[in-house]
Amino acid sequence: MTPDTRIEKDTMGEIAVPAQRYWGAQTQRSIENFPIGPAGSMPIEIVRAFGLLKKAAALANRDLGVLSAEKADAIAGACDEIIAGDLDDEFPLVVWQTGSGTQSNMNCNEVVANRAHVRGGGQLGQGERFIHPNDDVNKSQSSNDTFPTAMHLAAYAVLVERTVPAVARLARTLKAKADAMSDIVKIGRTHWMDATPLTLGQEFSGYVAQLESALEAVQRCLPDLTELALGGTAVGTGLNAPVGFDEKVAQHLAKLTGHPFVSAPNKFAALAAHDGLVGAHGALKRLAVALTKIANDLRLLGSGPRCGIGELQLPANEPGSSIMPGKVNPTQVEALTMVCARVLGNDTTIGFAGASGQFELNVYKPVIIDAFLQSANLLADACVAFEERCVAGLEPNRSRIAAHLENSLMLVTALNTHIGYEKAAKIAKHAHAEGTTLKEAALALGLVSAEDFDAWVDPTQMTGPLAASSRA
Amino acid sequence: MTPDTRIEKDTMGEIAVPAQRYWGAQTQRSIENFPIGPAGSMPIEIVRAFGLLKKAAALANRDLGVLSAEKADAIAGACDEIIAGDLDDEFPLVVWQTGSGTQSNMNCNEVVANRAHVRGGGQLGQGERFIHPNDDVNKSQSSNDTFPTAMHLAAYAVLVERTVPAVARLARTLKAKADAMSDIVKIGRTHWMDATPLTLGQEFSGYVAQLESALEAVQRCLPDLTELALGGTAVGTGLNAPVGFDEKVAQHLAKLTGHPFVSAPNKFAALAAHDGLVGAHGALKRLAVALTKIANDLRLLGSGPRCGIGELQLPANEPGSSIMPGKVNPTQVEALTMVCARVLGNDTTIGFAGASGQFELNVYKPVIIDAFLQSANLLADACVAFEERCVAGLEPNRSRIAAHLENSLMLVTALNTHIGYEKAAKIAKHAHAEGTTLKEAALALGLVSAEDFDAWVDPTQMTGPLAASSRA
Amino acid sequence: MTPDTRIEKDTMGEIAVPAQRYWGAQTQRSIENFPIGPAGSMPIEIVRAFGLLKKAAALANRDLGVLSAEKADAIAGACDEIIAGDLDDEFPLVVWQTGSGTQSNMNCNEVVANRAHVRGGGQLGQGERFIHPNDDVNKSQSSNDTFPTAMHLAAYAVLVERTVPAVARLARTLKAKADAMSDIVKIGRTHWMDATPLTLGQEFSGYVAQLESALEAVQRCLPDLTELALGGTAVGTGLNAPVGFDEKVAQHLAKLTGHPFVSAPNKFAALAAHDGLVGAHGALKRLAVALTKIANDLRLLGSGPRCGIGELQLPANEPGSSIMPGKVNPTQVEALTMVCARVLGNDTTIGFAGASGQFELNVYKPVIIDAFLQSANLLADACVAFEERCVAGLEPNRSRIAAHLENSLMLVTALNTHIGYEKAAKIAKHAHAEGTTLKEAALALGLVSAEDFDAWVDPTQMTGPLAASSRA
Amino acid sequence: MTPDTRIEKDTMGEIAVPAQRYWGAQTQRSIENFPIGPAGSMPIEIVRAFGLLKKAAALANRDLGVLSAEKADAIAGACDEIIAGDLDDEFPLVVWQTGSGTQSNMNCNEVVANRAHVRGGGQLGQGERFIHPNDDVNKSQSSNDTFPTAMHLAAYAVLVERTVPAVARLARTLKAKADAMSDIVKIGRTHWMDATPLTLGQEFSGYVAQLESALEAVQRCLPDLTELALGGTAVGTGLNAPVGFDEKVAQHLAKLTGHPFVSAPNKFAALAAHDGLVGAHGALKRLAVALTKIANDLRLLGSGPRCGIGELQLPANEPGSSIMPGKVNPTQVEALTMVCARVLGNDTTIGFAGASGQFELNVYKPVIIDAFLQSANLLADACVAFEERCVAGLEPNRSRIAAHLENSLMLVTALNTHIGYEKAAKIAKHAHAEGTTLKEAALALGLVSAEDFDAWVDPTQMTGPLAASSRA
Repeated sequence: MTPDTRIEKDTMGEIAVPAQRYWGAQTQRSIENFPIGPAGSMPIEIVRAFGLLKKAAALANRDLGVLSAEKADAIAGACDEIIAGDLDDEFPLVVWQTGSGTQSNMNCNEVVANRAHVRGGGQLGQGERFIHPNDDVNKSQSSNDTFPTAMHLAAYAVLVERTVPAVARLARTLKAKADAMSDIVKIGRTHWMDATPLTLGQEFSGYVAQLESALEAVQRCLPDLTELALGGTAVGTGLNAPVGFDEKVAQHLAKLTGHPFVSAPNKFAALAAHDGLVGAHGALKRLAVALTKIANDLRLLGSGPRCGIGELQLPANEPGSSIMPGKVNPTQVEALTMVCARVLGNDTTIGFAGASGQFELNVYKPVIIDAFLQSANLLADACVAFEERCVAGLEPNRSRIAAHLENSLMLVTALNTHIGYEKAAKIAKHAHAEGTTLKEAALALGLVSAEDFDAWVDPTQMTGPLAASSRA
Repeated sequence: MTPDTRIEKDTMGEIAVPAQRYWGAQTQRSIENFPIGPAGSMPIEIVRAFGLLKKAAALANRDLGVLSAEKADAIAGACDEIIAGDLDDEFPLVVWQTGSGTQSNMNCNEVVANRAHVRGGGQLGQGERFIHPNDDVNKSQSSNDTFPTAMHLAAYAVLVERTVPAVARLARTLKAKADAMSDIVKIGRTHWMDATPLTLGQEFSGYVAQLESALEAVQRCLPDLTELALGGTAVGTGLNAPVGFDEKVAQHLAKLTGHPFVSAPNKFAALAAHDGLVGAHGALKRLAVALTKIANDLRLLGSGPRCGIGELQLPANEPGSSIMPGKVNPTQVEALTMVCARVLGNDTTIGFAGASGQFELNVYKPVIIDAFLQSANLLADACVAFEERCVAGLEPNRSRIAAHLENSLMLVTALNTHIGYEKAAKIAKHAHAEGTTLKEAALALGLVSAEDFDAWVDPTQMTGPLAASSRA
Repeated sequence: MTPDTRIEKDTMGEIAVPAQRYWGAQTQRSIENFPIGPAGSMPIEIVRAFGLLKKAAALANRDLGVLSAEKADAIAGACDEIIAGDLDDEFPLVVWQTGSGTQSNMNCNEVVANRAHVRGGGQLGQGERFIHPNDDVNKSQSSNDTFPTAMHLAAYAVLVERTVPAVARLARTLKAKADAMSDIVKIGRTHWMDATPLTLGQEFSGYVAQLESALEAVQRCLPDLTELALGGTAVGTGLNAPVGFDEKVAQHLAKLTGHPFVSAPNKFAALAAHDGLVGAHGALKRLAVALTKIANDLRLLGSGPRCGIGELQLPANEPGSSIMPGKVNPTQVEALTMVCARVLGNDTTIGFAGASGQFELNVYKPVIIDAFLQSANLLADACVAFEERCVAGLEPNRSRIAAHLENSLMLVTALNTHIGYEKAAKIAKHAHAEGTTLKEAALALGLVSAEDFDAWVDPTQMTGPLAASSRA
Repeated sequence: MTPDTRIEKDTMGEIAVPAQRYWGAQTQRSIENFPIGPAGSMPIEIVRAFGLLKKAAALANRDLGVLSAEKADAIAGACDEIIAGDLDDEFPLVVWQTGSGTQSNMNCNEVVANRAHVRGGGQLGQGERFIHPNDDVNKSQSSNDTFPTAMHLAAYAVLVERTVPAVARLARTLKAKADAMSDIVKIGRTHWMDATPLTLGQEFSGYVAQLESALEAVQRCLPDLTELALGGTAVGTGLNAPVGFDEKVAQHLAKLTGHPFVSAPNKFAALAAHDGLVGAHGALKRLAVALTKIANDLRLLGSGPRCGIGELQLPANEPGSSIMPGKVNPTQVEALTMVCARVLGNDTTIGFAGASGQFELNVYKPVIIDAFLQSANLLADACVAFEERCVAGLEPNRSRIAAHLENSLMLVTALNTHIGYEKAAKIAKHAHAEGTTLKEAALALGLVSAEDFDAWVDPTQMTGPLAASSRA
């Protein structure tokens, strides 16, 4: 033992732990056994969810008469510090540990016990502790039901507190843009080829519809995540938990968080599978797919300034080229679409891991929740940045839009009902061959007067279905 | 032109078509331009959905006064044959064609026009046709809104008519097994290591819960698929369709199919994105994940006959080894899990394709629906086979289950409350070291009598939470 | 038994088989046990590879003195018909069967035995057969080593005979285009924004480099696929095969196919894992990634005709819009990129399936090879179609390319060395603000004469590094 | 400006930067524009690779006469600190930024310029700097060619310095185990069912073969990663770089690193695509697939202690159950297989991102290299931990292995040649029905004497092909 360490013991013997740290022997062994990737990679949301669930478990144990009020209070006090983020540094473990997250559960048990000891006036590593990590903090619990509970607590909270609001805000801003640009008629594009016109507002309305549907899809998955495994203990039977513990602890968690958590109706599935998270991440994947489409469209519509599409002007957030004005790289689009690429990969990871449970336990829990929270958080952050720094400030380039529309040959279809299909086609072919506008071709061929052309070729009328009056 | 062909024309000129085929020039060009993979790979469900939607469009056009009742009847008559499957051979095109499915739309237009001609007494390739493929069959439509409509019609129908019933049936059979085996106490396994006991019924109840949740998740996605793009025409604006066409055609489709189809509230999203299918396939992926877990458990529980787990006896459907009785390979498990592997890959395909739409059109439509229908159909078929030929006939191997339970050292925890933790641990260590049962060890050490052991070590009591009375 | 069936027997008893079919009881049972997806989905390449390996096994058995020359001849004769494709209809089984492909192995054993019987003058289902499906056709073999051997035979052949030549041909045509367009200077685009110029030939040279590297990567994987599992029999030990069988049968297969097949150095890995196919499909995925980039570029460069990029003219293979000349949809691009989306999904399937082997056998063999061959064949077909119907006929749109180049503001950097950065920037800003060309701005500001401008702003010089002489 | 900040300027104006930080305005803007995920997520390997390439570029610029020796020295000095890791904290940017990594390039340019200023005796933010971030540090370069160069430098180094040695070490240890256990005959398992015997050494030899092949596959991809984009500058043409710069800078990098880096033969592909990384990650995916199979086998073979397979004893690294001796959870297996699940997902991310480049630039560079390095590092770490803490210490459980072998009915095949197939089958059926061993059944039926049984049923002889002498 160096001066900076103290000795802790577990059933495997003694082990030196950093003297000032609240964690104990099992956490320390995990540090040493799993030097895989950066330290402390277990998501902080899981750490804090453990704080919540340990507190709720103590309260439920107290309510059911298996833990004294004093002990429950002591545990709750230490947990409150974890929940508040004051003890984040006491959780050094990595994602790549035991697949049940056992050691993160023990990490929390050890920290709570030691912190309660110190809060009660004790000195770390000295004297009998009032709170025992296993017998008290882990009472009526197992790693096998606590870790999946923490997964749902964390996933639910990140989705409703971060991801959903961020996407909703982006949808609102896109909606405002759609409304503001509802009168701008522009050329449509299908197969990347010029097509019939629509308004810029209509184009943006599609984005809004995609995001609103994607949000609904995410929200439809939330009920699955409100179901908590706690009370299942080691294999789902509830062995060693008092009757009623599962319902009671879920009620405490609902109250503590303000979220509608309930006890999972089938604890065997809750330990052995994570289908709810697989499904919810499928909804995040769908969201990423929608965002990719939307972001790509903005990237394309903003391309140029001279040799691209150029129908939108995206805001400039950083220097593009020092000498070339107008070179505004769509950097927010790029950040967002990279996030989406990550989300698509996370979906593969979660699918594979979710399918790999066997018997009474799925032992890919940490990687599932790590990938899930990464997706949910990155999507939230990227949507906020994209909304603030790209969508909110984008503007239509009206002259470019008008030029494209005027140049297009697709408007010729409007002449059909007036001069017949054949003459109209003749005009289009002439314009294509000569590189002129339709109007120029029409006049050159003497098939339509300028006044008639302007009166008949009205792109705005082409942005909706045929009114009864316009049918021949 | 050989004797076996007739000449058809389109705007690119003449082309020889097999004389007896109802398809026309554009279909033939597609055959020649896309010799990619096996012929006729476009899913037959899409072909029949086109039959439905062309009929519905004709009726809607008639209702709205833009198509005569005679023409509508002629179109509907030909469509009924497509819907009935009588013209399947007239649809030779492949998935790997234009990304909007344009040529499959034209294939249907051509077949309907020519078949109506023949039904009306005409001869194929001769005489003026009463029904024109573009002007009549395709009236008020575009490939861009018909193909996504066919996608939703087909996907919805396969899900509710095939996939959901198959999975529901499997869930019911698993439920019946769970009920029948609710009294069989067995060893639990976590981390693939012996754990505390549960009943075989409890274990199976987890599978039931997984499937029921997965079914709910699929059903939650169905509303997205009831939304039809028809009426959006080329870019979503509805250009060239009469006002009200979208609602009217959706009503006809709802009536024709008995399914609750409605007009998509935003046609721009309906053409440019397929998020509803991306989301619904995410639910199929989740189902595949659940099925993989369940099927693997049955495979493992049925392993042996001597050197595996051997707690279940799976039915023998085909000869295993001719000389080795009891070698029953879990072939239905293998077929099902291979299907699940395919579904996971299809999810990647659909995610990538769904994210790749741009502007007013996603041009990965055929590959999306091909992968989707493959997943939905294979899952349906494999679940039926698995239910009939594996789950329905499986039986517990009671002696093996009992032997494992008796052998296990995990039951020692039941002695804690009677003789204390230390003595109990001593018994377990002795049994582990000597390779004996706990009871043998207990007797050998003289710590428990045989009568007490049998009375105290009751695995059944370990399959649930602590009743109040049992708390010390 | 109906008149159309005959009775066959196996160890499970009697079963009715279609009277004229060469297959036997085990094939028939598989048909009935696995009604999953379309009939006959097992890839035909696997069927023919089984023909090859059964012949080679018979010859090796003869060489090693465990099979008479007469029997070997009889087996080889029947196999030759399978290899030639004359018996394709005798192989009705699906991919979704036993995961070792056992029933496809038995299908081949049964067909060979019965066909040899008929070839020898016997009548199907009557009389003693000279060749026994198990004792003779399957001699020294097991499903467990024959099926993976067929996988490698088929995969190797499709890659070298179809995929590689198709990609090589596409690369050559792109190379010819690059050479032909080496003098066309065009605007570059990065972040979808106008950038410094390059030649169209340089742009295409990047595609050629990608494909050539991708081909090399595929070819680097081929040695893995030359290793054959045959001789490993049931678990890799070679039990029941004569010493030397593995080497001998590999030699026969090398001779029969003209491909450098060898016996796998470790048969345990060859049965229990399919890492060679996982790796080779990774190379196909890389190829699909490269093709997606290339095809997308052509789609984008060909977009328009008026409101897109429009720097390339892709050939028109089918009618676009009847009224709008110049609307040439990039349909070959769409078919190819859909194929690539499928390949990406197949990679996920193969990865999942490849990771799921346990102990002495991977039982996801059929799905692995089905997905593999689908990728290899679709890529081959799509590359041929893309080369023939898109790349070979594409042409630069020189006037559009020139207009973009002239319009671009990026060329201003060429003025730096002549008039200094500040004045150059002033010109660019003026042109951007006024919507003029650089030259117009330069003249308007009186900073450069027309002659100097033309002399100094030479985009061609900007398509390479700084020659020593041009350094200040 | 607070006391803790200084003001920096770029073309967009002033911005406050932390006073003591070496980074400048563009880095600061990126911090503010991309608050996405944890700070500083850009992999540190990329930061250090930038150090290397900036130094090499300075030296090449010096060699080619476009940078003074004094400036080159000043740049190199600052770069050496970056390379040594002394300036890690000066790189606060995230992965989710501009898709070309522009801001990380500028981060390095700014840090080098400022650090050189301070090293030269200047004070941060005061006085004229001898080294300019753009004109000097970034000379002859662009973000577009530096970032992909850093990607290859980092990826190559991690693979050859960390991943390959870790896997090679694991392969060696498995080989040593295979050798040590070459005499232990055990039951084989196919389809999870008892099969014919093999030695434990043979079983492990399959793992060794898988890893050795996987390593070869990784190494075959290395040449792609030695090709460096530097010298391509903005679009691949090399504009603004002196002739010969590309070759020269690659030579410097080869010398500085000791790795065989060369200039990419086609710079257009090197900027616009990352196929080399896509391909190399495909090899990592293959490795992950192999590791999953191997790790799962060890997990299964070590399962128990009483109710699983139990043929291996895995080392105990942490407390399992306090009361249940022998409960050793396969925690290293779990960590490793979770890493593999992540790698499979990263492969999807990299495939999607790699396919998404357009024109002269792929703008998914940061997410590609982030996922790549995560896979390479996690695989390295997890293989080392797995080797040290699981494989090195595992031991065969000889008694369990022997019991399984003796119990198995598969050995009956050895009796065939002595008493005929029918009698042998009778023995097996009797043993299966009665639950006895084969020997017991043979004796009970009076078909074989105990001596003959022991002489004839020799599992060791069943672990190889038929010697010539043993053929009837």
